[in-house]
Amino acid sequence: MNGYGDVAIVGYGMARFSRGECSDHSLYELAVTSTAEMLNELDIRRDGIDALIVSTTDGRAYTASILADMLGIRARVVQRVESMCSSGASALMTAYTYIASGLCDTALVIGFDAYDSGMLLGWDVARGDARHPAHWAAMYAKRHMQEFGTRREQLAMVAVKNRSNALGNEKAYFHNSRVISVDDVINSRPVVEPLRLYDCSIACNGAASLLLASADRAKGICREPVWIKGIGSSSVGASISNIDLARMDATIDAARQAYRMSGVEPRMVDTAQVHDSFTILEVMAYEDLGFVRKGEGGYAAEGKVSIPAINTDGGVLGRGHSSGATGVAQVVEIARQLMHRAGSRQVRDCSIGLVHNMAAAGTHAGVIILSNQQ
Amino acid sequence: MNGYGDVAIVGYGMARFSRGECSDHSLYELAVTSTAEMLNELDIRRDGIDALIVSTTDGRAYTASILADMLGIRARVVQRVESMCSSGASALMTAYTYIASGLCDTALVIGFDAYDSGMLLGWDVARGDARHPAHWAAMYAKRHMQEFGTRREQLAMVAVKNRSNALGNEKAYFHNSRVISVDDVINSRPVVEPLRLYDCSIACNGAASLLLASADRAKGICREPVWIKGIGSSSVGASISNIDLARMDATIDAARQAYRMSGVEPRMVDTAQVHDSFTILEVMAYEDLGFVRKGEGGYAAEGKVSIPAINTDGGVLGRGHSSGATGVAQVVEIARQLMHRAGSRQVRDCSIGLVHNMAAAGTHAGVIILSNQQ
Repeated sequence: MNGYGDVAIVGYGMARFSRGECSDHSLYELAVTSTAEMLNELDIRRDGIDALIVSTTDGRAYTASILADMLGIRARVVQRVESMCSSGASALMTAYTYIASGLCDTALVIGFDAYDSGMLLGWDVARGDARHPAHWAAMYAKRHMQEFGTRREQLAMVAVKNRSNALGNEKAYFHNSRVISVDDVINSRPVVEPLRLYDCSIACNGAASLLLASADRAKGICREPVWIKGIGSSSVGASISNIDLARMDATIDAARQAYRMSGVEPRMVDTAQVHDSFTILEVMAYEDLGFVRKGEGGYAAEGKVSIPAINTDGGVLGRGHSSGATGVAQVVEIARQLMHRAGSRQVRDCSIGLVHNMAAAGTHAGVIILSNQQ
Repeated sequence: MNGYGDVAIVGYGMARFSRGECSDHSLYELAVTSTAEMLNELDIRRDGIDALIVSTTDGRAYTASILADMLGIRARVVQRVESMCSSGASALMTAYTYIASGLCDTALVIGFDAYDSGMLLGWDVARGDARHPAHWAAMYAKRHMQEFGTRREQLAMVAVKNRSNALGNEKAYFHNSRVISVDDVINSRPVVEPLRLYDCSIACNGAASLLLASADRAKGICREPVWIKGIGSSSVGASISNIDLARMDATIDAARQAYRMSGVEPRMVDTAQVHDSFTILEVMAYEDLGFVRKGEGGYAAEGKVSIPAINTDGGVLGRGHSSGATGVAQVVEIARQLMHRAGSRQVRDCSIGLVHNMAAAGTHAGVIILSNQQ
């Protein structure tokens, strides 16, 4: 019989998201820093970690084994998982399956990446300039504005909120930045109309780590484990040529799977991390994750429709986008919230959280539902 | 409860292993060829494949999604898995866990890689010239010869056998080659003493594919499914500086796990694929997989100690070494044997097979035990 074994998140760590020169050496160092901090706080021996799943788009081989060596970990399963900007969710799901299948009792997930100048969608040359993510995001934005009357200001409010949240997160790229206004966003440098610079996330160096454990092991490692209740993953193919720009089909499908597996309904979610690499994507995520009806995303951004607490740590727009680290960092924030360790940004009485991680024009999406109740 | 759900291999495909120019385009084409052939023969719709796990050391991002698109597959889980030369075993294990955990019912594994000039062990600069795989293989060989009296001729016999087996495998790199003798091996060009050119595998382009399914789905897709009974994975870290060169610890540990999970003992194995990227590694694998006692590997290579039928398709030495494809191709051969579809190289009455896939000086190993009995 195949069955879902209970799997918990029992620890998390994170390095500062930043930009600037990042040599091979310092890139690995980021990953080690993020992980060592976590392990030092947990009641687990380094030879008690069964699997190391590394999430990165960095192209070099054997990264996972090299990191295991640097950390002094003798994991049995040591591998890298990659699905571009959704690598983090893919790695977490893979770690989950290694435990749920019974092959492992514990799994360490490390997501990291170096700043690069923006990944091109190199597989679809037919797209021309639209190979750059900002182009497809702009297509989404135009379509949403046309079809649902979403206003420029509503998009800007997403950036204002997430940059403001980042001020309270000492690991965020924009932690030491300033409060920005709707006008600041609208008047920032044009990228691809209607999107401006502040509508776009910044690519940066970053690392985040998670430790997962089976039900049998979780409570011995952490007093307040956070449980993985639902997992969804969906792909609509690498080409966007046939998709409806008013909806993110992979997100809708992944969310449906995760809600069904967990028994959670959208209205039960207290806090969510959504993949806001561009402001428009957060607006669409509100709708496609079921928090509001299709077309209401702009109003939710304005605060006129009630939704869960979204991107409390700054999200991709405020924390910065480090491809392999992003999905892992999203789960870190939800784990902190559900363990009630989020400090000044703690969401009150929260018990259910959701993570939404995407890649490449939304063509792949992972949705993970977590709870502090087993 | 975490538990092992039954998982079967229900189909396999393989492209010709070859060398020469391999553009990006033809590299993907290899992977598609290997997979399309398999899918066309099976009773499965392309929208019935839940996961696509790609094994390659090729550094580009989003490969798995690109291949899904090229194949017209809408898998939910789409990711690349990499652990250098053992990527194939890692991908197979990952596909297994997605099914055994209950998240997926079917999973496609595609391993592929382009020829490169030999992967350097770039993480350990302290090794100097020993960064090249032939150097550590030579260290293993010298140590084995010193400690156990293994003779040069015994190593050569591994190459003679595997190159001979490759003549019967139309997908092998050395299919159109000729019979070689022990003298040919010993007199071939020196690489690193005591190893000569014919002791070393050749890096080449290649692709291999497998379809896995849950017990519920397997029999609807294939009349003779082959069951994954045992899985072992072990890592001794990326650095070989502290290891005993007389034994491959990761292999010993991975084999122990796989035997324990499956209830199979070494003497019950009818046929095995062992990671013979160098002749000495096959000799050591005989010992470290438990087919013979430590030190008897050379005698087994001579035929003086009974062992299972090894590397019936030519192994890495005869089939060629294509990093991401190698582990997958090994499983393809065992699946063919256990389905009794191996033609002229069929092992009689075989029901249990073993796959042994390694990376980087044996620092990571995967062992998989398969059976045609559920």
